[in-house]
Amino acid sequence: MARILYELAGREGRRFSPYCWRTRLALAHKGVDVVYEPCRFTEKEKIAFSGQERVPVLTDGSKTIADSWAIACHLEDTYRDRAPLFGGPTSRGLTRFVNDWTDTRLQSAMAPCIILDILHWLEPEDQGYFRRTRELRYGCTLEQLQADRSSYLAELSRVLAPLRRLLREQPWISGAGPAYGDYIVFGAFQWARCVSEVGLLEDDDPIRPWLDRIVKRFDGLADSVPHFDG
Amino acid sequence: MARILYELAGREGRRFSPYCWRTRLALAHKGVDVVYEPCRFTEKEKIAFSGQERVPVLTDGSKTIADSWAIACHLEDTYRDRAPLFGGPTSRGLTRFVNDWTDTRLQSAMAPCIILDILHWLEPEDQGYFRRTRELRYGCTLEQLQADRSSYLAELSRVLAPLRRLLREQPWISGAGPAYGDYIVFGAFQWARCVSEVGLLEDDDPIRPWLDRIVKRFDGLADSVPHFDG
Repeated sequence: MARILYELAGREGRRFSPYCWRTRLALAHKGVDVVYEPCRFTEKEKIAFSGQERVPVLTDGSKTIADSWAIACHLEDTYRDRAPLFGGPTSRGLTRFVNDWTDTRLQSAMAPCIILDILHWLEPEDQGYFRRTRELRYGCTLEQLQADRSSYLAELSRVLAPLRRLLREQPWISGAGPAYGDYIVFGAFQWARCVSEVGLLEDDDPIRPWLDRIVKRFDGLADSVPHFDG
Repeated sequence: MARILYELAGREGRRFSPYCWRTRLALAHKGVDVVYEPCRFTEKEKIAFSGQERVPVLTDGSKTIADSWAIACHLEDTYRDRAPLFGGPTSRGLTRFVNDWTDTRLQSAMAPCIILDILHWLEPEDQGYFRRTRELRYGCTLEQLQADRSSYLAELSRVLAPLRRLLREQPWISGAGPAYGDYIVFGAFQWARCVSEVGLLEDDDPIRPWLDRIVKRFDGLADSVPHFDG
């Protein structure tokens, strides 16, 4: 039975969910084949079988796993003979810190910089849902967020300080080679580059060469979808 | 030859440097004996032999190691048969992210909340040095920072979001058991509790039970110096 990854989809082939990118890269790292099944914001019935409403959802044989972290743990524990995503229990624990930092700080800082661009890449029937839920969350219109973009970019730069320092010291977040921690953080940048032309980083930012190295991995997987070069 | 840890000292036995606490706990984790040598801000001649001006400095046999990260790597690579501080190359890489997050974000957010309290615990001859260098860094007086403390505490709470989420999910930053990543972050909280009565955390914060567990380790090492209970 083929593995299926249900992932968020916009119009014209846009695949921008940062969580789904974590899973795409984790599957590629493990060398595990998968079929991608696009799923728009308002197509929640497609994943109703998973008992919840969010992508990514992976079906693997008789198993259904929702949530990118749970999927990464499933892949690590099921495909033990493949390249490790964590590499041991301590690494798994520390990678979860990277996961929670990305969720609570990095993506929260990045979202207001790109959120109006995301809207642009949604099918018309998804735009109403997206605008309503996000404007409720922020307490203002997406256009108002966009108008303050320069201040959000400045805050993003502050949030990125530890990543910037780290990538001056070592080539990958996970040390000498890439692992799941790298893909978690990369997912946030891929989210942006799939929807927005905004420049998030200065030209000489040490984060750039690390991004380029991940883009090139797995035969250019991150470049295989429509995106902007920024 | 006895190992010596040169560490920052204030008046009345105050030992508040977050970097020195990382090293104290790393040494205890490895079960490696050491003699503590107090070194005030203006006693830089005591560590001139290390070729630089900052503590911690560890002398171990014929070796002199400065910088808390370099010391942790030295301990891990020298005392391989003892409990691991990292547990492998991937963990070492990921722990460096925790290190850089603590340096650039956590301690930067915590510093303005406690900096006037630090001044109070310095010997008179160190107070001038400390005030001059810190007021130059911040571009305002320490009293002005103190006056804005409520806003700095709010920012600290935002910076702590990933740690709070992590410690709801798992008992230690390093996963199932404590390792160097835990001591790095603990060092920041120990810095505060050695000098200040300010409450940094709400009573029900999930960070609190983790702090309590580290305080109890190594026969209560973190409680063996003058401190506040907050």
